[in-house]
Amino acid sequence: VRIGKTTKKALTFGRRGMGLEEEINLANTYYLANQLAVIHKKPTPITIVKVDYPARSAAKITEAYFKQASTTDYNGVYQGRYIDFDAKETKNKTSFPLKNFHEHQIAHLAHVLAQNGIGFVIIKFTTRDETFVYPAKHLIKQWQLRQGKQSIPYLEIARDSFRVPNSLNPSLDYLKAVDQYFQQLD
Amino acid sequence: VRIGKTTKKALTFGRRGMGLEEEINLANTYYLANQLAVIHKKPTPITIVKVDYPARSAAKITEAYFKQASTTDYNGVYQGRYIDFDAKETKNKTSFPLKNFHEHQIAHLAHVLAQNGIGFVIIKFTTRDETFVYPAKHLIKQWQLRQGKQSIPYLEIARDSFRVPNSLNPSLDYLKAVDQYFQQLD
Ligand SMILES: [Mg+2]
Ligand SMILES: [Mg+2]
Repeated sequence: VRIGKTTKKALTFGRRGMGLEEEINLANTYYLANQLAVIHKKPTPITIVKVDYPARSAAKITEAYFKQASTTDYNGVYQGRYIDFDAKETKNKTSFPLKNFHEHQIAHLAHVLAQNGIGFVIIKFTTRDETFVYPAKHLIKQWQLRQGKQSIPYLEIARDSFRVPNSLNPSLDYLKAVDQYFQQLD
Repeated sequence: VRIGKTTKKALTFGRRGMGLEEEINLANTYYLANQLAVIHKKPTPITIVKVDYPARSAAKITEAYFKQASTTDYNGVYQGRYIDFDAKETKNKTSFPLKNFHEHQIAHLAHVLAQNGIGFVIIKFTTRDETFVYPAKHLIKQWQLRQGKQSIPYLEIARDSFRVPNSLNPSLDYLKAVDQYFQQLD
């Protein structure tokens, strides 16, 4: 494969339309297959009201509602450490609006840190095509400072984060940024 | 509260009919409220086929199906360690049938161990009213030995497990057994 401007364009094109969560799921599949980490997205929480049990076929849920999640979307284990994070993307170029978070997600990440877990958010600035592993301690500080409103300036996120490097396979090799985070912790 | 035969009977009576998962969920709520651990049950995985969006009310799922889980039911962080487990109960007195497990659960626990996570099963013998934290390494060995069929004798589970002690609040204080497991690991 010739790595150059054309390949980079093709890559960007290939990823166009692929959401951040989809990229993370592909990375997780790659990590699991290569025994690098065991990280899964949690199923969407749902309240089931009615279920039909037709003869000779699978149970069919006929009435259910989406429920507010009480945790983040992803967790798992990497190099013996508990990993917990959510994924957020924004088209905004200069800041990240805090309204993208729910209070319970911030509380959950604070609980994780209190148990010596590794908590963060993967933030993607889509128009910049830049993705960051932003440690929960900074997010919590910003949330308290701005009382859950307003936005975190891009420059502060870039300063306090670990940037996810460009990569071919997986296309979003976010554990590379987590490695740098671990180095800072040790 | 007078702790004696009467209280013990009342407790047993109070817990009668409460499933193992319900007891674990109550323990997790207690652990979270007392900042002892952050452990959650994962939502039931579902494939959503049809959703109605009625005006002025919540989105309503009108067709969905249960999906096979690819992991265990519970995970989280305790004292900086990644914890991952499933809960199983049996009315059987002398052995635990391996058909209670799916191959993918065994594979998932093996992946967790390979990442230095803590994997186990909480096994309850309901007629004995005895509950064990049974480390995944023993489960995996038994699964291979018996090729996913047959049963694990009660005596072998009791020998290789950490017994969950009787307790008032939470009624199933399974982290006490996990503490003993950690002591053996250190
Ligand atoms: Mg999310
Ligand atoms: Mg289960």
